[in-house]
Amino acid sequence: MNMLLLQKEDFVSENQAVITGRRFERLKDFIHIEVGKQLKSGIRNGLCGTAEVIAIASDRVTVDFSAASQPPPPPPLTLVIALQRPQTFGKVIHSAVSMGIKKIHFIHTFKVEKSYWQSSRLLPENLNEEITLAMEQAADPVEPELFFHRRFKIFADDELESIAGSSIRLFGDPAGESPVPLHGTPVTLALGPEGGFTDYEISTLKEHDFHGITLGSRILRTEFALAALLGKLIL
Amino acid sequence: MNMLLLQKEDFVSENQAVITGRRFERLKDFIHIEVGKQLKSGIRNGLCGTAEVIAIASDRVTVDFSAASQPPPPPPLTLVIALQRPQTFGKVIHSAVSMGIKKIHFIHTFKVEKSYWQSSRLLPENLNEEITLAMEQAADPVEPELFFHRRFKIFADDELESIAGSSIRLFGDPAGESPVPLHGTPVTLALGPEGGFTDYEISTLKEHDFHGITLGSRILRTEFALAALLGKLIL
Repeated sequence: MNMLLLQKEDFVSENQAVITGRRFERLKDFIHIEVGKQLKSGIRNGLCGTAEVIAIASDRVTVDFSAASQPPPPPPLTLVIALQRPQTFGKVIHSAVSMGIKKIHFIHTFKVEKSYWQSSRLLPENLNEEITLAMEQAADPVEPELFFHRRFKIFADDELESIAGSSIRLFGDPAGESPVPLHGTPVTLALGPEGGFTDYEISTLKEHDFHGITLGSRILRTEFALAALLGKLIL
Repeated sequence: MNMLLLQKEDFVSENQAVITGRRFERLKDFIHIEVGKQLKSGIRNGLCGTAEVIAIASDRVTVDFSAASQPPPPPPLTLVIALQRPQTFGKVIHSAVSMGIKKIHFIHTFKVEKSYWQSSRLLPENLNEEITLAMEQAADPVEPELFFHRRFKIFADDELESIAGSSIRLFGDPAGESPVPLHGTPVTLALGPEGGFTDYEISTLKEHDFHGITLGSRILRTEFALAALLGKLIL
């Protein structure tokens, strides 16, 4: 937890917020808290700043929040990614959200097992927890938007054009070219499932002006491929 | 498992190898094997090629290996990294090894807890398993060399110069500059522990001509920071 993430509901007055539950336990266990201590903080979907501890009880901490700065600017990247197996899904969320990606479209493809859509990790409360932990890790209080598209053809025919808009369009492809840094140009990046996109899916992406890119012959886990591509293209 | 990794001990004749144990279970459970099937393969610290299944028994598969190509070239990066907490250590190994890094120096720093050095993950058999899984993931048969340095000062005084040699010298530093792609120039990259290098450690690194770099204000888990930096600098 590199940022104490405050929610609107935590506030008991304009600047004072009361922290209980998981965040309180985390503060107590990992950070030496005492009255007067300044914590890096941020308001969910609001500003970054400092929370000063003003009272400590057995099950809660009260802090006084001072806003200081805008949240870090997001990388100009929209992610389109095949729904991963449940264990991998959490890692991909963490990787994407902690690197500041704000629009993530999970899609169905031929090699996505139907059962992945039944995973409890997709329940709103579990998604919210996954996202919150990644925001706390990154010290970025702005939550991402997640979208789920359960039919590849409908997604490709009806939504992909408006999602990608005027951005550069790239997809991960072992047969693709080595990518070049984009120097701030917005990009829509599509990543396939374990086993890759099918030929039909690749031709559909190409019809929508997506170009294949690869980081080389080594096969990386999706969460690391995403981090390396973001490093290469954007950071 | 994206590559069937063969060891010298597996070979029963010049080209024929017998696979048992974990690799056999993996082949049986995840890959539809039958006589005649061609598997992507590689010999540990040797060539890449194809293994054709020539016999299947209840507890073993016999394959015929044909060499076809050199292993993928490694990125020109030597990693120097503070020893992580045990759970993170495995992820860092996976991240580094699957991206092809061949020299990894784990070092002690002030904020590395002494107990991390007692972790069972550092036992040779556990290290070997961690490394092997990452090599199989990446389809790279060349194993990395791991080095462990338990005294920061001795490491910095006696070993760092010869390790870094004529390479560019960079270290992860929240106060550093944004890095630029190195276009193939060799680099030695030093990454700190959770909580970062101390001022003394930073000044020591700077005395050895290391320059601080950062990917921005977001705080990433070490394994993702490493992937993003490798993407930015090398891939």
